[in-house]
Amino acid sequence: MFEVHGFAAKDATSPLVPFTFKRRDIGPHDVHIEVLYSGVCHSDLHQAKGDWGNSTFPMVPGHEIVGRVKAVGSEVKKLKVGDFAGVGCMVDSCRTCESCQKDLEQYCTVHTSFTYNGTEQDKKTPTYGGYSTDMVAEERFVVKISEKLDLKAAAPLLCAGITTYSPLRHWNVGPGQKVGVIGLGGLGHMGVKFAKAMGAHVVMITTSEAKGADAKRLGADEVLVSKDPKQMQAAAASFDFLLNTVPVSHDILPYLALLKLDGTMVLVGALTPLDAFPGGALMIPRRTVAGSAIGGMAETQEMMDFCAEHNIVSDVEMVNMADINEVYERLVKNDVRYRFVIDMATMPKH
Amino acid sequence: MFEVHGFAAKDATSPLVPFTFKRRDIGPHDVHIEVLYSGVCHSDLHQAKGDWGNSTFPMVPGHEIVGRVKAVGSEVKKLKVGDFAGVGCMVDSCRTCESCQKDLEQYCTVHTSFTYNGTEQDKKTPTYGGYSTDMVAEERFVVKISEKLDLKAAAPLLCAGITTYSPLRHWNVGPGQKVGVIGLGGLGHMGVKFAKAMGAHVVMITTSEAKGADAKRLGADEVLVSKDPKQMQAAAASFDFLLNTVPVSHDILPYLALLKLDGTMVLVGALTPLDAFPGGALMIPRRTVAGSAIGGMAETQEMMDFCAEHNIVSDVEMVNMADINEVYERLVKNDVRYRFVIDMATMPKH
Repeated sequence: MFEVHGFAAKDATSPLVPFTFKRRDIGPHDVHIEVLYSGVCHSDLHQAKGDWGNSTFPMVPGHEIVGRVKAVGSEVKKLKVGDFAGVGCMVDSCRTCESCQKDLEQYCTVHTSFTYNGTEQDKKTPTYGGYSTDMVAEERFVVKISEKLDLKAAAPLLCAGITTYSPLRHWNVGPGQKVGVIGLGGLGHMGVKFAKAMGAHVVMITTSEAKGADAKRLGADEVLVSKDPKQMQAAAASFDFLLNTVPVSHDILPYLALLKLDGTMVLVGALTPLDAFPGGALMIPRRTVAGSAIGGMAETQEMMDFCAEHNIVSDVEMVNMADINEVYERLVKNDVRYRFVIDMATMPKH
Repeated sequence: MFEVHGFAAKDATSPLVPFTFKRRDIGPHDVHIEVLYSGVCHSDLHQAKGDWGNSTFPMVPGHEIVGRVKAVGSEVKKLKVGDFAGVGCMVDSCRTCESCQKDLEQYCTVHTSFTYNGTEQDKKTPTYGGYSTDMVAEERFVVKISEKLDLKAAAPLLCAGITTYSPLRHWNVGPGQKVGVIGLGGLGHMGVKFAKAMGAHVVMITTSEAKGADAKRLGADEVLVSKDPKQMQAAAASFDFLLNTVPVSHDILPYLALLKLDGTMVLVGALTPLDAFPGGALMIPRRTVAGSAIGGMAETQEMMDFCAEHNIVSDVEMVNMADINEVYERLVKNDVRYRFVIDMATMPKH
């Protein structure tokens, strides 16, 4: 065991404060990463504030973790000391269930060990996330990051990136398709970049004209303002695929009406109850609504390689570790374009 | 034009009464069918009573129509005089849109001419359904029925049959899959028969033990009582596919929980608003909800041939035309196992 400096929420009502804890010494399959940057996901805030009712404290948030490999166990093959590497939302899973065998560890039917606010496979030892100087995880749950990528801007790929990449791939988004990305935030801005790189005709669907302009800078071919009934009516039944990144409860009916025959809308943001909608909206024509959560580790590596090939990273704003509580306040106000990343070199001495 | 005897609703509040109207003389692509049997779909009642707000009167219901070909137009190839034939929920569509080109006329983006309470392609001439002695429709919208099948019990295949067959086929239900059929009525009892004939392991999901016993007689391998939380918990995340035939608004969340990774639930009954459910139920694990409406004409013919091959028909109770209002009262009380069929030989003289 060795000592690590981090920042933690001690309970749901207090600000995050410096926190010293221990990580395990590396085993034969482990990778020790010197954390250089850690992305700030909106779910960090939800969990630190206990919004989802499943929080355990102390909590060291952070599941968009990138850095340099400091040491590797004797059996590690994929990574070597000095490589750039990343850890996302998971650090372990059962590895034997049907989901794990399909490389979909996020859907492990036994126990997924989430990177923080979770437990190791013993279901007891708490996990601590990326708001810390050092990370240890098994090789399977560590991805290699190309030196071609701007490392700090690659951090959000580990959550915002894979969460949008995975459904676009799973539902075979590509050339000849009209694809809408609903909501322009941390997830949505990645969705636009990926869908465009995959060759689709990309439409940013947003409540505001202003966001639309920025979406075009990110690669969107068109903008559809969802508050304009005329625009929505004109676009009815014209989309092959919709990536719905709205992170809160909302009415999906206006978006369902945009799907053509056999079109699919995938929810990646809204965990909470959707407004009631008529079953008939899925029947005439035949339409699909699905959900998707992050992505498996093999697919996360595939995404990272895709990003290197297409030169895709997040649009980020760098922040200091000691400013995390103010950063959370800005998150609440949606004052971020499009992801905050903590520079771990700013970790205060403690 | 020639005179036809039928039964019609004159408005939303009165009982159905004898009604004489005219059908067109057959054109080169038309088929004239002597109607022998006409199934009674619950939607007949909804539309006759104006429940869906889209009713026009007088209305001659009936879209599960079977009989003998009496005459064919000069260009008709598929059918000849004396053949058994059927007409379902549609009698025409634009034939040129993307949906029609895919043989999915029910999703015609221009105008589907429904068999009754609809209009022909001129969007003016009202259509009259199967509660009548004679039917005329274009060959494309008429299916051939094998003489092997019990014709009266084949009538409900034209709506209840294709509505359940189409999604089972579209989502590739087959051997090695655990398939649940939710709700045992006109649709559900066909869903059980088809899913079984396609080789799936079929589970009847019903609120009542008694219905479960009958489902086994129809071919279900297992029964899951949805009101029993222990049974539902034990079956969590175990289904590949769910055919949801519940015809009214309801809470789909308990059923979503039954789906395994990449499982799909298809709604074929509930047109009205579903209860709010959390988006997260579709995300962990990745799950899909879709809808489906009847089936295209090519697929309806395929189903009819499948039924002949597997000796599948509906379980029916024969009724007299003059008793239709009492039949509707029994429908309201769900007092039917599993479909009423009108013997058109009982049409009163008028």
